[in-house]
Amino acid sequence: MKVYLSGEIHTDWREQIVEGAKDLDVTFSGPVTDHAASDDCGVAILGDEPNKYWHDHKGAMVNAIRTRHGIENADVVVVRFGEKYKQWNAAFDAGYAAALGKPMIVLSMPEHQHALKEVHAAALAVAEEPRQVVEVLRYVLTGKLPG
Amino acid sequence: MKVYLSGEIHTDWREQIVEGAKDLDVTFSGPVTDHAASDDCGVAILGDEPNKYWHDHKGAMVNAIRTRHGIENADVVVVRFGEKYKQWNAAFDAGYAAALGKPMIVLSMPEHQHALKEVHAAALAVAEEPRQVVEVLRYVLTGKLPG
Amino acid sequence: MKVYLSGEIHTDWREQIVEGAKDLDVTFSGPVTDHAASDDCGVAILGDEPNKYWHDHKGAMVNAIRTRHGIENADVVVVRFGEKYKQWNAAFDAGYAAALGKPMIVLSMPEHQHALKEVHAAALAVAEEPRQVVEVLRYVLTGKLPG
Amino acid sequence: MKVYLSGEIHTDWREQIVEGAKDLDVTFSGPVTDHAASDDCGVAILGDEPNKYWHDHKGAMVNAIRTRHGIENADVVVVRFGEKYKQWNAAFDAGYAAALGKPMIVLSMPEHQHALKEVHAAALAVAEEPRQVVEVLRYVLTGKLPG
Amino acid sequence: MKVYLSGEIHTDWREQIVEGAKDLDVTFSGPVTDHAASDDCGVAILGDEPNKYWHDHKGAMVNAIRTRHGIENADVVVVRFGEKYKQWNAAFDAGYAAALGKPMIVLSMPEHQHALKEVHAAALAVAEEPRQVVEVLRYVLTGKLPG
Amino acid sequence: MKVYLSGEIHTDWREQIVEGAKDLDVTFSGPVTDHAASDDCGVAILGDEPNKYWHDHKGAMVNAIRTRHGIENADVVVVRFGEKYKQWNAAFDAGYAAALGKPMIVLSMPEHQHALKEVHAAALAVAEEPRQVVEVLRYVLTGKLPG
Amino acid sequence: MKVYLSGEIHTDWREQIVEGAKDLDVTFSGPVTDHAASDDCGVAILGDEPNKYWHDHKGAMVNAIRTRHGIENADVVVVRFGEKYKQWNAAFDAGYAAALGKPMIVLSMPEHQHALKEVHAAALAVAEEPRQVVEVLRYVLTGKLPG
Amino acid sequence: MKVYLSGEIHTDWREQIVEGAKDLDVTFSGPVTDHAASDDCGVAILGDEPNKYWHDHKGAMVNAIRTRHGIENADVVVVRFGEKYKQWNAAFDAGYAAALGKPMIVLSMPEHQHALKEVHAAALAVAEEPRQVVEVLRYVLTGKLPG
Repeated sequence: MKVYLSGEIHTDWREQIVEGAKDLDVTFSGPVTDHAASDDCGVAILGDEPNKYWHDHKGAMVNAIRTRHGIENADVVVVRFGEKYKQWNAAFDAGYAAALGKPMIVLSMPEHQHALKEVHAAALAVAEEPRQVVEVLRYVLTGKLPG
Repeated sequence: MKVYLSGEIHTDWREQIVEGAKDLDVTFSGPVTDHAASDDCGVAILGDEPNKYWHDHKGAMVNAIRTRHGIENADVVVVRFGEKYKQWNAAFDAGYAAALGKPMIVLSMPEHQHALKEVHAAALAVAEEPRQVVEVLRYVLTGKLPG
Repeated sequence: MKVYLSGEIHTDWREQIVEGAKDLDVTFSGPVTDHAASDDCGVAILGDEPNKYWHDHKGAMVNAIRTRHGIENADVVVVRFGEKYKQWNAAFDAGYAAALGKPMIVLSMPEHQHALKEVHAAALAVAEEPRQVVEVLRYVLTGKLPG
Repeated sequence: MKVYLSGEIHTDWREQIVEGAKDLDVTFSGPVTDHAASDDCGVAILGDEPNKYWHDHKGAMVNAIRTRHGIENADVVVVRFGEKYKQWNAAFDAGYAAALGKPMIVLSMPEHQHALKEVHAAALAVAEEPRQVVEVLRYVLTGKLPG
Repeated sequence: MKVYLSGEIHTDWREQIVEGAKDLDVTFSGPVTDHAASDDCGVAILGDEPNKYWHDHKGAMVNAIRTRHGIENADVVVVRFGEKYKQWNAAFDAGYAAALGKPMIVLSMPEHQHALKEVHAAALAVAEEPRQVVEVLRYVLTGKLPG
Repeated sequence: MKVYLSGEIHTDWREQIVEGAKDLDVTFSGPVTDHAASDDCGVAILGDEPNKYWHDHKGAMVNAIRTRHGIENADVVVVRFGEKYKQWNAAFDAGYAAALGKPMIVLSMPEHQHALKEVHAAALAVAEEPRQVVEVLRYVLTGKLPG
Repeated sequence: MKVYLSGEIHTDWREQIVEGAKDLDVTFSGPVTDHAASDDCGVAILGDEPNKYWHDHKGAMVNAIRTRHGIENADVVVVRFGEKYKQWNAAFDAGYAAALGKPMIVLSMPEHQHALKEVHAAALAVAEEPRQVVEVLRYVLTGKLPG
Repeated sequence: MKVYLSGEIHTDWREQIVEGAKDLDVTFSGPVTDHAASDDCGVAILGDEPNKYWHDHKGAMVNAIRTRHGIENADVVVVRFGEKYKQWNAAFDAGYAAALGKPMIVLSMPEHQHALKEVHAAALAVAEEPRQVVEVLRYVLTGKLPG
């Protein structure tokens, strides 16, 4: 089963899930999580842009090669909303996954519940802890519940 | 060939088919057949719900991650209607498979013939015994008829 | 907005919805609700079948011309589960609509809640009364809530 | 041409666009913009939920009947990011529209440029003023530029 | 309801159906039935071809503009197999319609039953008389049976 | 590359192609070519039918599990029209493949040219000899021309 | 029938076709043919770009709102290759239309035959004169040949 | 990751990319690059055509078996516009890839910038050197930037 891990890149939630699921037949993918590389990939490869908008645009386009490929090839998409930043790219990925009919697991915090209600409504599972995402994947693949 | 075995979870029809087809190049999948786990997976992983509706809802959503993935990736879908219960999930899966254009084999009992006529009309084969499902799969894969 | 009304044909729930929504810009469709015609349409038009299975099959196929066209052209599908019968055709239609990504409203009874949990999990609204279906349609079209 | 106006519901940007485009052959649609109705539609119609999560969930699901229908039937989707709130539903709609291949116009503020770079990368036009959205629509429909 | 009438062009079966269905809300379409025009349309418009293969090819391509558009826009496809000729274009249209998931009615003769079994297996109704096609359409649209 | 070999089952054209392409990275599939098994598979497995129509129908439906799966999974579809019989199933497969956008190679005889013009118009190559089909496959895979 | 007229904007071929087809039930659409407006629409509406690449890019994106909508909604796409310029946008539109399965008519000059062979291979008709395009449309709609 | 290399066949850009990416998990495909074989494949295999148009047509059709399969199976499509020729096949492939939603990298020369603006507008990256294409692929697969 191919699982795409979208969203927040500043905490170790991906590592927790990958570690927790290491006994499962799952292949994980996700965006580039090196923040600097992700921001600068466009100009670093394709040439400088003095204008910040086009600097960002070129990078976002190059990153889209990876992210769209990742989402479109995934069997399950996990989207993480963390504590900080606008995180519109996470919500964008959630909408993208929903429109493709991908089963989606949202990993979010209780204080964001109301603001995320439209995103939650498109999810098949809403978790608060990476451990729960692992448990959902384990159940889905093996039928085993925790504990 | 990937075959999804949908429906009844209280008899050994899946085991009969898997055993009968063990010499064929078939990979079987299906829902979680541990009834208790299937009912409780949502709350066991994602948190309790005092309200029975949401208890069930959370579980049904988690199970849908597995069942939709299974049906969408199947080459052939077998749907079993057994003796007991409402079995609306079996009929739901049949409709889901039909809309996706999946070749469908229905395994049902003569006394349900009239009630299943719309489901049968969407099937490419209607069998009464697990053995017949195996024979259809063997014929489809090898061109060999029984006997 | 085109709304397909699937399921039970023995009570007046369709009439209640059509009447309640008569001020809305909605076009309703649904299966043939004349039970005898629905059962016999195949043989009445295309020739007798001594075998009950094929009698039913021919009818179910002819009815499928109408029902699949209706569901595929609908913007919203309402599926009603009533008190009696197996109602596998209703659950089949629900699965069909779900696989096509149609927004679905299920109209069902509290005592069927557990048995319908997989169907409910694919719905955007679960109602117990035809009046509520009308209210959902009115809200969706006009933004007005009841009362 | 059918244009769906997604996003912020607290300023009059929709009215400005509708007014500016009144001479064009455009039909506009969008979400319910009555904030209270939008939040409460689920429980108001389908029954109370003591738990805030399910209160919100029921409402988000009912709103999804309208919003998904609106986006899927649109020829062009405009997504507005305003000054306040998380606006994850706007970004979700943008992702949804992008995955469906809908031409998208984003209406956003310069200070959000970096945070919106992935959303902008999926857009065919990025505007800062409702007037510009009208001008894009006028140009697309008539070939006339402003001024 | 849009109905495409494919197949045989040497008898008046189309006229019989159109006449019989004149009280129904049906729009009929079909191929060009002027045999000479159909054979020569390619070279008559786009220039002579000394080689018979390309003469036929050019015509078949031009006719395909009409026939594919007709089948793809139809709600129901009727395919008629008559007494004479190879009629591979009729079988081709049947396969084309089947792959698109179009409800199909086959109008054929008892003596062709065995040779048409694969085509019949993809149909929702198999009729022997144009009158029966009209009756199916009438039932599908109005729920009324003949007699 | 997966190649489906549809059509005539009475000569050794499939063997010629498989033999000729044995050095190529091609996986071939096709219908069951045992004529008797193909005709009787439905009743042999799922129960006798006194009526010839339903005897044939059951068999055609079971065969469709194999043929539709084969065509839908193929990268290239080869359709052979031989000397004898109506061969409507071959033309049906050609239409089915065409509607799915599968690259198609038709293997036919000069005397059928006019009758096959609609089928040829949907093909990317029209060959008269199995050897030519092999040469097309070799060229497509390796860029090498014969001789 | 909706016909999209793609390609060259420097001669009156569109006017000739529209005039010639004025008695037919055809709705024509196409790109903006005011060359200056087409080049500058992006910056004129969405703000200046000192860099020529982004100047062009913004314009091309805005034009894409119109052209993709036009092609996706067309029943038939006509692509004109004229005497001058690179005309890569015309070939791009042809590829876009081909991938969507749109019936395509190419209007081109004999001296471009070899260079256009891949584009021609995706067309259902190749014409040299606007008059021929009208004649194809007339034949497709009415079955009448010229003269 | 599967990458299709479309376009110019007269310089060694493909070799440069394949060589540069030899440490990456990428499978490359592309058209036949033997110009003579590509031009003559149709007649060499399927029989001579005295008419140059059909000579070219037969070849273009056979090549389409390879190129469409290649593009449809690719995860990323790279389209190269070189110095010489009309290169309409490259632009056609770009449109084809765009309509299928394939992430596209265009490799072009500064002097073609204006003429390629519609093609660039459909690309996620525009490069001038094969080295940059390799760097994009490396970043997309590994997250590593050059230098």
